[in-house]
Amino acid sequence: MREPRDTARDRSVTVLAGGYGGAKLAHGLALVAPELGMRPTIVVNTGDDLELHGLLISPDLDTVMYTLAGLANAETGWGVRDETWSSAEMLALYGAPTWFRLGDRDLATHLVRTERLRAGSRLTEVTEGLARSLGVQARLLPMSDEPVRTRVRTDDGWLDFQEWFVRRHHADAALEVRFEGVATARPTPEVLDAIAAADLVLVAPSNPFVSVGTILALPGMLDALRAAAAPIVAVSPIVRGAALRGPADRMFESLGGEASAEGVARHYVERYPDLLDALVIDALDSEAIPAIERLGLTVVAQQTVMSSEEDRAMLARSILSRFLP
Amino acid sequence: MREPRDTARDRSVTVLAGGYGGAKLAHGLALVAPELGMRPTIVVNTGDDLELHGLLISPDLDTVMYTLAGLANAETGWGVRDETWSSAEMLALYGAPTWFRLGDRDLATHLVRTERLRAGSRLTEVTEGLARSLGVQARLLPMSDEPVRTRVRTDDGWLDFQEWFVRRHHADAALEVRFEGVATARPTPEVLDAIAAADLVLVAPSNPFVSVGTILALPGMLDALRAAAAPIVAVSPIVRGAALRGPADRMFESLGGEASAEGVARHYVERYPDLLDALVIDALDSEAIPAIERLGLTVVAQQTVMSSEEDRAMLARSILSRFLP
Repeated sequence: MREPRDTARDRSVTVLAGGYGGAKLAHGLALVAPELGMRPTIVVNTGDDLELHGLLISPDLDTVMYTLAGLANAETGWGVRDETWSSAEMLALYGAPTWFRLGDRDLATHLVRTERLRAGSRLTEVTEGLARSLGVQARLLPMSDEPVRTRVRTDDGWLDFQEWFVRRHHADAALEVRFEGVATARPTPEVLDAIAAADLVLVAPSNPFVSVGTILALPGMLDALRAAAAPIVAVSPIVRGAALRGPADRMFESLGGEASAEGVARHYVERYPDLLDALVIDALDSEAIPAIERLGLTVVAQQTVMSSEEDRAMLARSILSRFLP
Repeated sequence: MREPRDTARDRSVTVLAGGYGGAKLAHGLALVAPELGMRPTIVVNTGDDLELHGLLISPDLDTVMYTLAGLANAETGWGVRDETWSSAEMLALYGAPTWFRLGDRDLATHLVRTERLRAGSRLTEVTEGLARSLGVQARLLPMSDEPVRTRVRTDDGWLDFQEWFVRRHHADAALEVRFEGVATARPTPEVLDAIAAADLVLVAPSNPFVSVGTILALPGMLDALRAAAAPIVAVSPIVRGAALRGPADRMFESLGGEASAEGVARHYVERYPDLLDALVIDALDSEAIPAIERLGLTVVAQQTVMSSEEDRAMLARSILSRFLP
């Protein structure tokens, strides 16, 4: 008789994820992982990271980690639930910047991360340690141990990602995106292993330009994905022409392409030839199936909006039953 | 007609202070400063500083600053009132050390201090900036910009000050005290100026071994004090043979001397000849007056226990009326 743990070692799913949609899909996978005998590995964008108050903040890693730990603030979509804001009030008294709000519990994560990084640990090791402390069962990996910083060009010039996204509420049209440091950054050995060993690679319903796009911009990443034995399946972050959250839809307008399920397919097929095998789109967009199939992708149309935990588990179970060998 | 501000520039009182007793006396001085036309300068021990969670924590500076800002936690004698502890709970989840408790508001102070120090500011500048943000009118100066770390030898060997004081509740007898880094540290120019320009120098009712003792151990400090024109007046931290707080009384036993008003006088006179002009002792110890006078000190006996704000102001007013020229 095989133990569940042995089974878990046999099937591996690797997800490329940003914060919000990535966290939800990762959570769905984590929910169904025990029953399906697999442990998901979540490779997370770190291009949105920033330094504030002398601390390294990794918003996407933290959103995924808090979600998987059951600590996420469901109302805001970021940060920790049952949060308090005393340190932020005091920081404001000292005139420190407060536009990027950090709760007291959240702050502890950044303190520990920063201290361990300064002591010489890699972000990969630090992330695994933090996640383990919070009881996260899935494997959480930063895309790289080297800093990559996404910047967005607007009519006001180049802005740091969080300056654009949080401070200015992504109100400025994104005219261009660049990933500072990406040329000298590398996917970690752990990420490359997780891709090579995967039975299935998923691209989360995250922003194709600044979440998935950042991960795919890492030197060697596309080669690693194309060389992987596993099918690569993306989930569209656009439903009925709109992003469920964030500026992905407006970025299609300003950066080129179309904010639609077909536009997502075209984006991936044209920018990253021979990468995707399939695209999961929302059932509400099923009229796009023929056009997407003509681009050479397998298409699955189903409910992709994850409003509840049940939705998350259902989407994960459905994708895995269709694509996990 | 002279403006109060002009008057304030004319009389200056400089206090050498640790945390608890130093904060109370400093607060008393600050309370009576407007009516007496003076601005106190508080020179604070930094030998109790520590690094925790990658942050520089200056417990004595913070106790004095929070007290002067009206933010101190009166019940604990340290930290900020209306404090919350969310970050500490989360730090505990991550397995970070929690024996030195940091509240959420307090944490903001350490974050800002550490960030500004890392950006290249001197601790003196950082301290003045923090105090100004909190509305502190008195001048708050660290004794030095260079790190000095008090260590205490016990039967278990040498311990960092806070390890001994907080973590082990100063339960181990202090067999020896040393100030690491003191040989290469210096009083700041601001401290030397505040001593040279003072009309009165006060030694707060702080621990003579590890608060005042640390300040006096700085190279050049005793010379600067002896060269000062101002009278130098200490307030005894021992009342009826006991320290009001902390281990000063037991340190007299283990390090030599006697925990009494006379013992305090003898400690200062023997270890630091020609330093003090006068000692303020508690009225409850007035039987010690003749013995202390025989040591060559002027003695004032009065209520020194500062249980309320009124007590603090009364002690300050009384000392100033007696010694401020």
